[in-house]
Amino acid sequence: MRAVARRHGVSLRPHLKTAKSAEVARLAVDGATSAIAVSTLAEAEYFARHGFRDITLAVGITPQKLGRAAALVELGVDLTVITDDVSAAADIAAHSADLRALIEIDSGDQRGGVLPGSIELLDIGRALKGKLGGVLTHGGHSYDCRTAECAEQAAEQERAAVVTAAERLRAAGMSCETLSVGSTPTVRHAKRLDGVTEVRPGVYMFGDLFQAEIQSCGPGDLALTVLASVIGRRPAENSIIVDAGSLALSKDRSTGLTDHDAGYGLIRDAANSPAFGNCRIERAYQEHGVATADEQLPFALLPIGAKVRISPNHACLTAAAYDCYYIVEGGDEVVAVWDRINGW
Amino acid sequence: MRAVARRHGVSLRPHLKTAKSAEVARLAVDGATSAIAVSTLAEAEYFARHGFRDITLAVGITPQKLGRAAALVELGVDLTVITDDVSAAADIAAHSADLRALIEIDSGDQRGGVLPGSIELLDIGRALKGKLGGVLTHGGHSYDCRTAECAEQAAEQERAAVVTAAERLRAAGMSCETLSVGSTPTVRHAKRLDGVTEVRPGVYMFGDLFQAEIQSCGPGDLALTVLASVIGRRPAENSIIVDAGSLALSKDRSTGLTDHDAGYGLIRDAANSPAFGNCRIERAYQEHGVATADEQLPFALLPIGAKVRISPNHACLTAAAYDCYYIVEGGDEVVAVWDRINGW
Repeated sequence: MRAVARRHGVSLRPHLKTAKSAEVARLAVDGATSAIAVSTLAEAEYFARHGFRDITLAVGITPQKLGRAAALVELGVDLTVITDDVSAAADIAAHSADLRALIEIDSGDQRGGVLPGSIELLDIGRALKGKLGGVLTHGGHSYDCRTAECAEQAAEQERAAVVTAAERLRAAGMSCETLSVGSTPTVRHAKRLDGVTEVRPGVYMFGDLFQAEIQSCGPGDLALTVLASVIGRRPAENSIIVDAGSLALSKDRSTGLTDHDAGYGLIRDAANSPAFGNCRIERAYQEHGVATADEQLPFALLPIGAKVRISPNHACLTAAAYDCYYIVEGGDEVVAVWDRINGW
Repeated sequence: MRAVARRHGVSLRPHLKTAKSAEVARLAVDGATSAIAVSTLAEAEYFARHGFRDITLAVGITPQKLGRAAALVELGVDLTVITDDVSAAADIAAHSADLRALIEIDSGDQRGGVLPGSIELLDIGRALKGKLGGVLTHGGHSYDCRTAECAEQAAEQERAAVVTAAERLRAAGMSCETLSVGSTPTVRHAKRLDGVTEVRPGVYMFGDLFQAEIQSCGPGDLALTVLASVIGRRPAENSIIVDAGSLALSKDRSTGLTDHDAGYGLIRDAANSPAFGNCRIERAYQEHGVATADEQLPFALLPIGAKVRISPNHACLTAAAYDCYYIVEGGDEVVAVWDRINGW
């Protein structure tokens, strides 16, 4: 992703909402700037404790959260928040904290953000006064894409949205330094990023089955697996039960929307090889995952207690069930344990 | 639930898989015995640290987990494990730890367990030798019910399954002291529990929207809510965005299978009153919940930063996103903070 950003001449501000780990962040950042994006104040505080000094909190701020934001600024963090609301913008402007705010733009995701051509854009810009730092969008609708071409179009929508918004702000006499875009699919497939200053992809650091399905990564690029044990065997039904259910994997069913439905996750052997065909968790209970496969399962290799690895549909949600990562080399040697920050 | 168990003349062994909290467990247990069920070794270890001495680990054990189980026994815990596998039963019997095992019976859920009339039942009983403590079933198929009558039938299937299994074990010369059944719907609606010795409901301690839909509790019996803030407003779409998404609520969509689809959760006001009609989270992103309602939302009451409470579909999964509970009285006064144990 660093190479992609360099090719486009934009800064990479990796989004740590997936990994939530200082060790992963250190691998992800461009050493020159160490700029990151986060999704919660808890993440911002954690990364500040780990020495990160350029942090964008990329979820709309509320006035009530400005106190915690201000405490980070006092610690020396160059903190950027985002808003799409005139009233919140006025609160940000009135607050004593020396922080910057970006205006959130809706580039097609229809979640947060104002439209780039809206009157609100200028109202928010004016309300932010000297704290206006620029504009930001997240083309989350790229997750609806199944082809590189579609993601490329979403990337162009992101680009056009922030460029249009920035031009309007500048035409109205306001400064607009930062034009921030990104999701893993759009950054991966963007053809051009003219005018954009930074990209904020996140899930690319791990990849997952859904990202592989939408062409954001290859099927061999999935870094995160859940190690589980066989706790039940039903040869007559060609089914096994593992001790990883909806708490261990999440109930995300995103691959169900693609050509390769992996249920609640795809089961591989302990060395992370696809030894069990398309063995997938079809039913997820709190602590039980009931798995089956189209081919006959090799039950001799799957006694009670046998270890398997599960590739999750959605790395962000699955990782959130854990407070650390076991870093594995050569199949099963744990060479490090990296913490992560959960909660809010 | 204590009254229900007393009425049936059976012991209550509350399942702490939902609450995972010592404070909640102390409210739930029958003071005479303090018997509990848990779903993970981490829970067993946590409750042992908090003084609980009669614990059933109600998810199939693997031989590799017997070491941690044995450590609990050495601490003085009367530990019961479960199995539905002859080989695992032999491993349990051969282990030096002084623990008891129940044979898991499939009473219709088609998840874990052997059929009560199966040959395997007797093979497992013999393999367990002196460690055979009885039989256990979980009528999880009661979650497919939408009426009390259906849950009552599932309860009778649970009862008949363990009674049949126990009779067969006894007829083969084996002892079968414990006949353990239960899910919240089946225990709530059981007509008779003749022969059963204990029940293991869990989610009743909190209730949730799905349990209310399947008649396991009333709509006013929901103890658990997620406090969130409005972070976006889209009056033209009659929609708000809150800072509680799939990490804060889980992606459980169980009410989608009922007559009252609550999306990813139902939004109430900060005092937990249904002030916003059927305002529900229709789309859940990692940290964003996009909510709408059939009626016009009162946007004047919902500025950026306004607090709302969200009733979750499935309390077990939602609670797992948090490491503590804020105990609230009178709408918004936090009178205590209770910890909980996550992970494995």
